[in-house]
Formats: sequence, C-alpha cells, structure tokens
Amino acid sequence: MTVAICPGSFDPPTNGHVDVIQRAARHFERVVVSVSVNPAKTPMLTPEERVALLSEVLGHMDNVQVEAYEGLLVDLARERGAGVIVKGLRALSDVEREIQMAQMNAGLYEGVDTFFVTTDPRWSFVSSSGVKEVAAYGGDVSALVPDPVNRLLETRYKGGSR
Amino acid sequence: MTVAICPGSFDPPTNGHVDVIQRAARHFERVVVSVSVNPAKTPMLTPEERVALLSEVLGHMDNVQVEAYEGLLVDLARERGAGVIVKGLRALSDVEREIQMAQMNAGLYEGVDTFFVTTDPRWSFVSSSGVKEVAAYGGDVSALVPDPVNRLLETRYKGGSR
Amino acid sequence: MTVAICPGSFDPPTNGHVDVIQRAARHFERVVVSVSVNPAKTPMLTPEERVALLSEVLGHMDNVQVEAYEGLLVDLARERGAGVIVKGLRALSDVEREIQMAQMNAGLYEGVDTFFVTTDPRWSFVSSSGVKEVAAYGGDVSALVPDPVNRLLETRYKGGSR
Amino acid sequence: MTVAICPGSFDPPTNGHVDVIQRAARHFERVVVSVSVNPAKTPMLTPEERVALLSEVLGHMDNVQVEAYEGLLVDLARERGAGVIVKGLRALSDVEREIQMAQMNAGLYEGVDTFFVTTDPRWSFVSSSGVKEVAAYGGDVSALVPDPVNRLLETRYKGGSR
Amino acid sequence: MTVAICPGSFDPPTNGHVDVIQRAARHFERVVVSVSVNPAKTPMLTPEERVALLSEVLGHMDNVQVEAYEGLLVDLARERGAGVIVKGLRALSDVEREIQMAQMNAGLYEGVDTFFVTTDPRWSFVSSSGVKEVAAYGGDVSALVPDPVNRLLETRYKGGSR
Amino acid sequence: MTVAICPGSFDPPTNGHVDVIQRAARHFERVVVSVSVNPAKTPMLTPEERVALLSEVLGHMDNVQVEAYEGLLVDLARERGAGVIVKGLRALSDVEREIQMAQMNAGLYEGVDTFFVTTDPRWSFVSSSGVKEVAAYGGDVSALVPDPVNRLLETRYKGGSR
Repeated sequence: MTVAICPGSFDPPTNGHVDVIQRAARHFERVVVSVSVNPAKTPMLTPEERVALLSEVLGHMDNVQVEAYEGLLVDLARERGAGVIVKGLRALSDVEREIQMAQMNAGLYEGVDTFFVTTDPRWSFVSSSGVKEVAAYGGDVSALVPDPVNRLLETRYKGGSR
Repeated sequence: MTVAICPGSFDPPTNGHVDVIQRAARHFERVVVSVSVNPAKTPMLTPEERVALLSEVLGHMDNVQVEAYEGLLVDLARERGAGVIVKGLRALSDVEREIQMAQMNAGLYEGVDTFFVTTDPRWSFVSSSGVKEVAAYGGDVSALVPDPVNRLLETRYKGGSR
Repeated sequence: MTVAICPGSFDPPTNGHVDVIQRAARHFERVVVSVSVNPAKTPMLTPEERVALLSEVLGHMDNVQVEAYEGLLVDLARERGAGVIVKGLRALSDVEREIQMAQMNAGLYEGVDTFFVTTDPRWSFVSSSGVKEVAAYGGDVSALVPDPVNRLLETRYKGGSR
Repeated sequence: MTVAICPGSFDPPTNGHVDVIQRAARHFERVVVSVSVNPAKTPMLTPEERVALLSEVLGHMDNVQVEAYEGLLVDLARERGAGVIVKGLRALSDVEREIQMAQMNAGLYEGVDTFFVTTDPRWSFVSSSGVKEVAAYGGDVSALVPDPVNRLLETRYKGGSR
Repeated sequence: MTVAICPGSFDPPTNGHVDVIQRAARHFERVVVSVSVNPAKTPMLTPEERVALLSEVLGHMDNVQVEAYEGLLVDLARERGAGVIVKGLRALSDVEREIQMAQMNAGLYEGVDTFFVTTDPRWSFVSSSGVKEVAAYGGDVSALVPDPVNRLLETRYKGGSR
Repeated sequence: MTVAICPGSFDPPTNGHVDVIQRAARHFERVVVSVSVNPAKTPMLTPEERVALLSEVLGHMDNVQVEAYEGLLVDLARERGAGVIVKGLRALSDVEREIQMAQMNAGLYEGVDTFFVTTDPRWSFVSSSGVKEVAAYGGDVSALVPDPVNRLLETRYKGGSR
C-alpha cells in the first residue's frame, strides 16, 4: 500500500490545494494531508483552524486524513510509512525551490520520492497569499476557495454584520 | 477612450518605471499612475513623497496623472473606467507572479486586461530594491533614476552637507 | 488612433489566438491580424487557408482585419501606421524569445512597442503544434480551436466521409 | 490497482530514464514503459532496438513492461487502464512544455494525471541528445547510460574492432 | 594578476559554497572570500563565526583569504584590485536576480565582470536556508556541509547533552 | 597561465559575442575562440568565413586566437591546455541547456570549468538567428553586429551589384 503525503501551509486552503489532494487520493491508497506548523511565521489561521477547514472540505474522501505537523517532512513520512510526497506544480519560480527541497528530502530519507502534479488550469493562478490579499480588501474570492474557507474569510474581513 | 493604469510601489521610482509609463502614455488616451499604499510594508518613501516625485518627473505628459491608492487594483480600475493595466516585464521570476496576479485580476473584474511591456534593455536590470541598496552604501545611482529621485536619495543617505 | 498588430503563424488558429485578438480589439481602435508567411517552413495550412479561417472566426469584429504578410514585422507596422504589437504570454521559455524579438523590433523601429497579454487560463496550455499533434492521431480538439478550424482538421485528418 | 505509464523517446535510454522508471515502479503496481514511435523524426535507434535495450536493463523489475507505441498517449492510457503518467523533471524550459502537454492530456482524458518526479541530481544534466552528441565524437558516456546502451553506442560509433 | 571575489552570506557555508570557491581558486591567482555583513538581517551565525568556519575549511588553499565586509561589493572589488566576481549558478529564479545584480555592479564599476560557475550536480540543491531548516529540526546535514559547520550546527541545535 | 575557450557557432558573430570574448580576454591570459563545425547543420557562413570575420574583428587583441574546431569541446580544452570555458549568459531557456552542457563537460574532463558571463544589457536581446532573420528581409542590423559582419550581410542579402 502506498501512502502519500500532501504537505502545505494551507493558510488558507484554496481550490488548487483541494484539486491536488483529490488527484493524489485518486491514485494512492492513503493520503495524509499535513498542515505544516512553522513557529517562525505568523499565519492568518491557526493550525487547528486549517485542519478543521480541510477536514470539512475533504470529509467525503475516505482515504484522506488531515493533521497538523511540526518538524521535518521526511520524519513524518517515516512515521506514517509514506513513500510519496505529492505537491502541486504552479509557478516556475516555485518549481526551482520545490525541486531543491525534493532532492534535499530524497537525500535525508532514501525511501521517499516527491511527485509534482499539475492542477486544472483554472487554479494555476490561485495562491493562498493572493487570496488573502484580495479578501483583506473585501474582494470576492468565492470562486477560488472552498465554501467553508470563503465563509471564514468573509467573517474575518467583513465583519459579522454584513 | 481607453484608460490605462500603471500600478507600482515606486519606492523609489526608477528610469525603468518612467520608461514603462511613457510607453503606456504613447498608446493609451489616459494613464493613471497608481502608487500602491500597503500598510503591511515599511517603505523608504511615504506615498506622498512618491506621488510628488512621479508628478515632477512625469509633469510634462498631459495624459498622465499620479495618485496614491490603497485597495484592490481592480476596484481602482472600475472607479477610473480603466480597461487596461500596464506593467513592465523584467525578471522571469517576477513574470510568473505577475501572470498569476493578472489572471486573478481578470477573474475579479472581467473588463480589465493586463498588458506587459518590455522596457529599454538599459533598464532591464534596474529595480527599486537594487537602487535602495546601492544608494544606502553611498553608491552612485544617478544613471538609474530620474534626477529628482537621485537628489532625494543623496539628501537622505549622504547628509545635507555633501 | 492606435493601430495594433497581432502577428502569428496561426497554423492553425486556436482558441488562445482568438482570445488574444479579442483582448486587443477591446482596447485598440484597429487590429491587424498578420498571418506570417515563412518560405523556410512547411506549414500544415496555406497562408490563404489561415486567412480565410481567421476571417470567418473574427468576422463579427468590425475593427479587426486579417491579412498574410511576408517580411519584417516592423515594416508591416510602419506601413499600417501601427504603434503596438500584441502577443499572447504563454510558456516561460517562449517569453524569453519573445522579449528578445520585442527588443530587437524596438531597435529596428522606435515607434513600436510590444505588449504581452495573458489569456484565459483555460487556453494557457493550447498551442498550434499541440493541436496538430493531437488531431493527426484522431484526437478530439473541438474544445481547443474555433469550429471552422475543427471542421477543417477533421476533414484533413479523418477522411471526407465523416 | 494503479497503472502508470512512463513515456519517452528513449533514443537512447539514459541513467536518468532508468532512475525515473525505478521510482515509478516503487510506488505504482504496474508500470508501462512506452517507447514513442514518431514517423516524423529520424531516431538513432529503431523502436525495436530501444524496446530491446530497455527490456534488458529493466528485466529484473517484475512490475515493469516495455512496449513501442504510435499514437496519442491518452489512448494508450485508456487501453492499458493507466491513471497516471510519470515523467522526469529536468530542465525548466522542458517543464513548461511538459506542463502544457500534461494539461492537454488531462483535457483529452479526464481519468489521467501526470506526475513529475525529480531524479537523482547526478542525472539532472543527462539528456539523450547530449549523450548522442558526445558518443558521436568518441567521448566516454559509460557513466551516463546503462551498460547495454554503452556497448551499442561503442559498436555504432567506434567500429567493431575496438 | 587577476583577483576574484567570492561574495556570499555563508550563513552557514555549505559544500556548494566550498565547491564554487575551489573552482575560482583553480583559475584565478587570488581569491577573496567576502562574508557579507547586512545589518538589516538577523543571521544564525555572526560574521566572525562565518569567517572562522570558512578559514578553517579553506585553510589549505594558499591563494584564498576570507574576510567580512559591509558595503557595496564593487567598492570591495576596487579596494582589493579585483576584476572578477565569481558566483555559483543554482536556481533559475536566483539567476535572474543575480544577472540584475551583475549588470548593476558592471554599471557601478566598469572594471568588474561577474562570472557564474556551475557546481557539482550533487550540490545543486543545497542552500544555506535549507540546511538551517533541516538542522533546526534535528535532521542530518553532514553530507551537505563541511565538517566544522556540521559540528557547530549540532552543538547549536542539539545541545551538548545529546 | 589560464587558457580560456570561447566556443560558439558565430553564424554570424554579433556584438554580444565580441562583448563576451573581450571580457574573457580581460581576465584570462589567453583566449581561444573556437568556431564549432557541425556537419549536421547548414550554416549561413562557412567555418572559414566565420574565422576570417572574427580574426578581423578581434585582431587588435594580442591574447586572442581564432580557430575552427570539429569535435568534443573538452577534447579541444585538453589539447590547448584550457581550464576554463567562457560563455555568454542570455536567455533563461538557454541557461538550462548551457548548465546541462557545462555539467556534462565537467563529467567528461574534470580539469575544465564553465564560467558564464553577462554581457552589456544592450546586447542581451541579440542572437545570430535574429540577426539573420532581420538581415534576410533587408532590415538594418548595423547596430547589432561588427562592421565586417554587417558588410558581408549587406553584400549577401541586398547587393544590387550581384
């Protein structure tokens, strides 16, 4: 049985993230969605909020589980018996950094390979930081993120009275 | 009448920025130069200083106006009746991010298209951050920025007594 | 009045090409679609076929005209009084070459600027060569090209009996 | 059971190709190595030679089969019940084209996803065309290709008497 | 006599850095390794620690000297009579920024050229920030950095009691 | 003494090529300009014509010699005692291929390193193929190539007196 990890900040989760996870879940027996906890950054959402949102959005997929993780990705892979890391392939400037991380991870844990998957072209321009920027100024991001994420962003940025 | 917006941080304006604005003003009836105000960043120059510098440098072009703006670029486009956003095309790693923003903006406001224009090769390596770094150590940037910008940088970094 | 040229091989025209031309026609008074004739290449379609297809597809736009052209693009720009060349922005590896051509053209004719416009993300992966390759093996390209192009490809590659 | 296709020209197979196929075979139940037959190109090796070389090199892997194929990759995927295409991730300029092909294939056959995997850094600079160029001038490529490929190249380019 | 400068943050030095410096020392009479001091950043190691580590690692090379420097790189080049800056060529997204800096430096000091050299493919994925991230979580980076650097990282992140 | 090789097709030589060679000649004791002879291609100029043009243009530099070469670049490096290959750094899509070649060459001959140097931004968009295309249609390339090259192109493509 091949276990795949889909790691990310998911701050917040976007339709692009969900697309990547769905593609992984189509082809691998089990998928662990790992919400990275990075004490050095100040995210918009707490790890708990991000896990809750992803669990709600992905709840219908039986072979997908969501968890927060602080530490080295390869250590999580070892613990979960995961042989594969799946990431979305988006901006070229990201690709370079992603390849470097993939090869560093392969050096740290020989049992793991990183697979990059392209998303639907509709999501190729969607990033968490872009979504946050637009939402912060009251822009409509309902076409870019899952419904629960959209509702949370509206509450946060527009106030409950709107 | 086609109105074009030239958005940017312009912290400080460079010869590359001026080149892009001139090309936009050549081909569109009206050009709005929009100095983006981002409360999350700590710029070297205040929005007012940047507007003043650009107004001085671009004053001879009748169809160009300069203003500071805080908010979504597409909202400014709607307010000003602008159908076009014009940006310079420089580093490839920027291009990717720019394309993502362009497509996100097109999704937010169907009436707007982003056009990228190449600058004179002489300015292809000039960036505001590079200019700031060089000027901060007393380097000569007079060939890279308009005169009023150069004078302000000299005053700021070298002291009035020089 | 600003005249824009949309140059290309259009062998065959795709939905991505049409998207670029429509965006140019939205913002410039007149658009000249220039089908490049390159004696050194052996295209699938004759220049006449490509002009005919584009004329049929673009016929509803009053400010667009289609013509074949052999020669330097900047010479066509001079003849037509065009100050702008509009091209689609797609693959990054293309961008580099396109920027080089844009700057070479600007050096040859100072009056002309090249603007790059992003297409709808749906067409970001569509290229004439990809369409040809798929169609040659009987693949369905009806979602990627205008109807008249699809009909011609079917006739050419699948036999007249369909 | 997830079947993966590893497509390529393999003209000739390199250590980089073998690395990609091994990684695919680690994580997917069955791997079909598909030697693409393109009548428009004149390869160095016939499809039969390439299939024979790959079969010899990969013979020890029970879940890998090698075959020649002429046609659309997505048609082969449908025929073999393959839900995944696995490709190596190498040059950035290739990546762009690969992403375009991946998204075109996803449009042609919704059931298929393309995964890109990074190879060992040692092979990141090895390409079939580079190998051919070096071997043609008598250069030593034994560190870059599997043994059977090296022997065939030596016979072909250096004469049987060496 | 040609003097070359190898500038960098070296926070910490990696095997990739050492590789670049060795290649420079092979081809130029004297090499100045310049540890950049940037008051705006908070590095992991003090400039003194970085100079000490590099001096220990590079001590066997007679034509290499290490020093800390705060200021414009071109001013250091002028002071040391250096006509060449040597940098490693790694990620493409870095390349763009590096080219911009190279051309800005060439504009500031006509006597200086920047040469980029490729490292051994084994180090192509190694970056100081990646090393820091892995080491901070107790990952093993002994294959990626010189021994003295590894010992210091172990002391710093693991504590003497482990 | 460090000998550097500047390899290329030089079909025809451009101002960008001359710029790269001049920078190499500034920093290395001897420079061998190697005109690559590739029987598989049909160049515009014979190897003899290219050597003659480069010799005329570079004649004033005492430490530069020009020669035609057919074979592996690393074999030429060995024969000439060259430890360095110097190439211009231009389009990003080229960079990738250049890095692959550099690392393949380093694998074939451990004694050789490839250094990439950026040219003056004015030449960043100039390529031999672009020059040929423009000259073939009678365009003016006198600002892009050395005088002897310009004269030869005019004779070849324009000549009323032919």
